[in-house]
Amino acid sequence: MRRSERIAIMTKILTQNPRMLFSLNYFAELFNAAKSTISEDLSLIKDTFQAFNEGHIMTVAGAAGGVKYIPLLSKEKILTDLEELAHKLQERDRILPGGYLYMTDIIFNPLYANKIGEIFATVFHRLEPDYLVTIETKGIPLALATAKAFNVPLVIIRDDSKVTEGSSVSINYISGSTKRIQTMALARRSLPPGSKVLLIDDFMKAGGTAQGMQDLMAEFKAQVLGLGILVGTTTPQEKLVDDYLALLELEALDEKEKNIFIRPGEWIKTWDFTV
Amino acid sequence: MRRSERIAIMTKILTQNPRMLFSLNYFAELFNAAKSTISEDLSLIKDTFQAFNEGHIMTVAGAAGGVKYIPLLSKEKILTDLEELAHKLQERDRILPGGYLYMTDIIFNPLYANKIGEIFATVFHRLEPDYLVTIETKGIPLALATAKAFNVPLVIIRDDSKVTEGSSVSINYISGSTKRIQTMALARRSLPPGSKVLLIDDFMKAGGTAQGMQDLMAEFKAQVLGLGILVGTTTPQEKLVDDYLALLELEALDEKEKNIFIRPGEWIKTWDFTV
Repeated sequence: MRRSERIAIMTKILTQNPRMLFSLNYFAELFNAAKSTISEDLSLIKDTFQAFNEGHIMTVAGAAGGVKYIPLLSKEKILTDLEELAHKLQERDRILPGGYLYMTDIIFNPLYANKIGEIFATVFHRLEPDYLVTIETKGIPLALATAKAFNVPLVIIRDDSKVTEGSSVSINYISGSTKRIQTMALARRSLPPGSKVLLIDDFMKAGGTAQGMQDLMAEFKAQVLGLGILVGTTTPQEKLVDDYLALLELEALDEKEKNIFIRPGEWIKTWDFTV
Repeated sequence: MRRSERIAIMTKILTQNPRMLFSLNYFAELFNAAKSTISEDLSLIKDTFQAFNEGHIMTVAGAAGGVKYIPLLSKEKILTDLEELAHKLQERDRILPGGYLYMTDIIFNPLYANKIGEIFATVFHRLEPDYLVTIETKGIPLALATAKAFNVPLVIIRDDSKVTEGSSVSINYISGSTKRIQTMALARRSLPPGSKVLLIDDFMKAGGTAQGMQDLMAEFKAQVLGLGILVGTTTPQEKLVDDYLALLELEALDEKEKNIFIRPGEWIKTWDFTV
């Protein structure tokens, strides 16, 4: 079997299973090849990925060691992607009656969802969550793509307790967009107490939903490592939650003039990216 | 640049973008290589994928031609995956009060969701949908993974019309699991009239929800190409919808004795798979 044939299969297996550890033995047996040969193959993949900014191949030494693929985008790539997203979200016909921004088509497009998931996975790459957590419905595709990149399960907060989820913990909160008291609920069995979690949501204005998510996490004694938002509004400047990262910032949405102004978050200017 | 380096990058780009057409020129420019060289590289990837059952590399001839990756699983792989899923779903503590089956952890685990999506994409690989369609919430991860494999957007039917979606069409239906009249709604702008759609959902008993989805599709003059379900119950045998494919069949769920019996659908016995 030729090197390039092994490279094709190894690349596919590694990149389709981000952060999953594969032992050198696994590949050696798959190809009936020496471990030293596999090791050389992996070095080649690693160097090539680095040269083309296609993510990081990480080697873990030791008996329980092996190799895994970490999806990491370059700062330039993230900026380009966010500018493209901002451009698309500024299309005038996205303004809905009531001054809402229509984002559903982008969020549920697998190409965009995966892009956004890889961006979250890159900016939060130092974190080691046990679970990704979001609230239904529009957070799901973004959180699912992020969960895939972190190789952890996704936990969904529901907008009501469901009979198909068993007993659950629910809290009330005031959503910024509707100004009404709403309920969010999480099935007891879905999240073990004391878990480390990363929260993801699609939109944040005042932060009522985000605060509700954090309160609900406290009920599960979960440790919140971070909060990632796709689009955050610049006003109100004072949010109900402190630590969050909004990939994009919505500065203005004028329903009458049909103007929207969205740009990549200020954080990216000073964001220093080293693996 | 060496062949194995080009192979690593091409494999990553192709497999991470299923059914997306890349011209030979695209790769020739990326690597500063001759088109004949790229063509040889692609043949090698194609043959290797075939030998390892890792999907199909499809060449499209002509001026607008190129190459794309079609995720296709072998019949053996699908059967193994479905048996593993059935085994996992038969864990006794999945039975919830009321005789419901807890599946949320599997559905929202990216590894399982992607596996299920690739199975749907394989069994429906002859269809050419413009959109995948599902109903919130538990259908979303499965439909999103299927949509990714088909390289089409996902459209979400909501359980109520939402202010952040604009005007919508809603219908009432009777859900088999709750026996109550419920509403489902789809934003007008989310699905162009006359689209070809593939419907995906997580569970079907009598088929009330599935029929509702089909009725709603009729309101959008959509052509329903198929209906894929993760778990269908064997009783009632007579469903409200005719044409559907349930990957798994739930034969029995005994709340008192804590017994669950799930197996791969009967269809797989006679299912003939050729690309």
